[in-house]
Amino acid sequence: NVKGDRLWESLMEMAKIGATEKGGCCRLALTDLDKEGRDLFSSWCNDAGCTIKVDKMGNIFARRAGTRDDLPPVMTGSHLDTQPTGGKYDGVFGVLAGLEVLRTLNDFDVKTEHPIEVAVWTNEEGSRFAPAMVASGVFAGVFDLEYGLSRADLDGKTMGEELKRIGYAGTEEVGGREIKAFFEAHIEQGPILEHEEKTIGVVMGAQGQRWYEITITGQEAHAGPTPMARRKDALVAASKIVCEVNRIGLDNQPFACATVGLIQSSPNSRNTIPGEVFFTVDFRHPKDEILSKMDAELRAFAEKTAKDGGYEMKFEEIWYSPPVEFDKDCVNAVRKGSEIAGYSHMDIISGAGHDACYVSRVAPTGMIFVPCENGISHNEEEEATPEDLAAGCNVLLHAIVERANI
Amino acid sequence: NVKGDRLWESLMEMAKIGATEKGGCCRLALTDLDKEGRDLFSSWCNDAGCTIKVDKMGNIFARRAGTRDDLPPVMTGSHLDTQPTGGKYDGVFGVLAGLEVLRTLNDFDVKTEHPIEVAVWTNEEGSRFAPAMVASGVFAGVFDLEYGLSRADLDGKTMGEELKRIGYAGTEEVGGREIKAFFEAHIEQGPILEHEEKTIGVVMGAQGQRWYEITITGQEAHAGPTPMARRKDALVAASKIVCEVNRIGLDNQPFACATVGLIQSSPNSRNTIPGEVFFTVDFRHPKDEILSKMDAELRAFAEKTAKDGGYEMKFEEIWYSPPVEFDKDCVNAVRKGSEIAGYSHMDIISGAGHDACYVSRVAPTGMIFVPCENGISHNEEEEATPEDLAAGCNVLLHAIVERANI
Ligand SMILES: NC(=O)NCCC(=O)O
Ligand SMILES: NC(=O)NCCC(=O)O
Repeated sequence: NVKGDRLWESLMEMAKIGATEKGGCCRLALTDLDKEGRDLFSSWCNDAGCTIKVDKMGNIFARRAGTRDDLPPVMTGSHLDTQPTGGKYDGVFGVLAGLEVLRTLNDFDVKTEHPIEVAVWTNEEGSRFAPAMVASGVFAGVFDLEYGLSRADLDGKTMGEELKRIGYAGTEEVGGREIKAFFEAHIEQGPILEHEEKTIGVVMGAQGQRWYEITITGQEAHAGPTPMARRKDALVAASKIVCEVNRIGLDNQPFACATVGLIQSSPNSRNTIPGEVFFTVDFRHPKDEILSKMDAELRAFAEKTAKDGGYEMKFEEIWYSPPVEFDKDCVNAVRKGSEIAGYSHMDIISGAGHDACYVSRVAPTGMIFVPCENGISHNEEEEATPEDLAAGCNVLLHAIVERANI
Repeated sequence: NVKGDRLWESLMEMAKIGATEKGGCCRLALTDLDKEGRDLFSSWCNDAGCTIKVDKMGNIFARRAGTRDDLPPVMTGSHLDTQPTGGKYDGVFGVLAGLEVLRTLNDFDVKTEHPIEVAVWTNEEGSRFAPAMVASGVFAGVFDLEYGLSRADLDGKTMGEELKRIGYAGTEEVGGREIKAFFEAHIEQGPILEHEEKTIGVVMGAQGQRWYEITITGQEAHAGPTPMARRKDALVAASKIVCEVNRIGLDNQPFACATVGLIQSSPNSRNTIPGEVFFTVDFRHPKDEILSKMDAELRAFAEKTAKDGGYEMKFEEIWYSPPVEFDKDCVNAVRKGSEIAGYSHMDIISGAGHDACYVSRVAPTGMIFVPCENGISHNEEEEATPEDLAAGCNVLLHAIVERANI
């Protein structure tokens, strides 16, 4: 079994980098803090005897040799970047659980036929740079390298520039190599395991996502002497669409999720009618047909709102990630691992996107969920217990070892 | 008559300070650019032979002596600060029209019994520091000095600190002295004069205003795995209130104006449900009863929205400026000035607040409006013609000279 204490200590050590007052973490992708986190991980992997390679998207691969080192690796991992008001476990758990598996194999001097690699994927969160999972997406051939490196934050800084700045623009080609199997351990980020009182979620797949960027342009004018009838208030139009996004989410239950996470109004002055509003929409559903229906409803409403109010609108779908089904053998390896280790478990669909979703296009893939308190994540109050995290890590150990010796 | 060309050149010269790409001006209160504008004005007033005093709120008074210099001054003026995406005339016209009046009196070597002062009021716009007209408010005894100096911008910097930083924390007491009459020339900032094809608006008074700051607190959570039914999306609640503010404006026609000008959502990340939203509301109406009715409607809706959705809400009315009626004699002086000079004119109510509204509490006050293109202001495209501006300045000259010799 893995050492739960060691895993926990590493998690708490990593959580100091970007620690927030409320006990969370703010370690946005490709900031100085992200570099610090990457450096710490790399030093731990060096200590564990791994060789480390970084690819052109900044993805890090720490490799423990196999007895037949020419065989394709079994890979695990997740991400170290967080939301602006993120938690200590989202992503980090999957990375450090991988490290803990390697440390455990070292402890008992266990050799595997296949090499094992622990991956850190760049910018999984999609918060600083959209879309999410962009670097695992390039790895899987979903996006090309140029697209990945040119993603820009709201200040116009690109991933390529920022990778260079923090010294993580590696030289390895991105992807294009065989992987025996990929496993990602993660907190559930939803309330189901806690509610069902299960320790392990055997992840069958993930729901689909559509992300949008919408810009409404009206006309700036004085909030006092401009009669209501002459106004083109961009924030009023945007607010109607925010309410409609919420309506679409509510009316496509069960399962639909609909969120406007980001909004910027300009000039953002108390007594000036907003002239331009930029905002994002995040739609999710496990069924592609319903996701398409939600898409159609949003488009129709936004177009009508813009037309009726005489607004200009830029409406862009910037990301579509279809629903994902994981590999049967990998899913079975996770389920079997839970049973051998004696943890309660249940099948589950992921509500969040994960790097595993893209990796599953080029390698047999599975995921392991553990509960998080009140189902809350993307929040500084995100919590998980040392016991559940150790359990998830043990299941990961079983699944990896099984795959690495076939 | 005044020299329209000279007035225009001064306006264009001042507009270079903070000039924006789209031909507007961004000279926020108490920034380095505001200091530059104040310095330029002061140097022009020095050249015109004025003595200059600055009070503790940073209000500047440039004084041209009277033949009986112990008599209370006739005062004119407006403000040099602008909106973030403001224009070249809002406020600046009233200041430089005052200067042009003094220059004209100098040209013809006209003496007046009463001294004449041109005032520059600090932070009229209320954009960087809320509320609007705060320094003329202190001058008029509506706010005390401490309140004025402690107004803070969104970064927490106070007016007191910023006045010191730019060297305009003067030593004169604020207000408390007799003023014979106050006149403010201004662009209309609305569409009425243009529509009625009149050159001069004889301003009878101004509508009332209520400003609010509202903070809705919900719960940050992941936009993917958090079921709609468990959410407390602060932006959804805020958007409902934005739509209701608009509804209240539309349903209290004629005359009601209702605007949400500023909104900030946190953490503002695409795939995180917004946990907290801060926004402002600006209500206006010429009738106090209707303004109170609008207030009641907003409170009821906001409270219900917060309660039904399980949100926490901080609801603060931060400013109430009742409807204003100007002094009959001053209004007549403006009307008579328009007639003597032969300009078409009409009576009008101001939709915007102006420093004149507060000064009217301690001095007989009147205002002069000139048209602006399409009624647009608080917009970089704000435009007015040299002819209309010269006309307004001529009426100001007549009104001031009339009052300064009684
Ligand atoms: N796991 C996670 O938070 N991923 C971010 C991408 C998403 O929003 O689903
Ligand atoms: N004139 C002007 O724009 N004043 C600002 C205060 C207001 O919003 O009415």
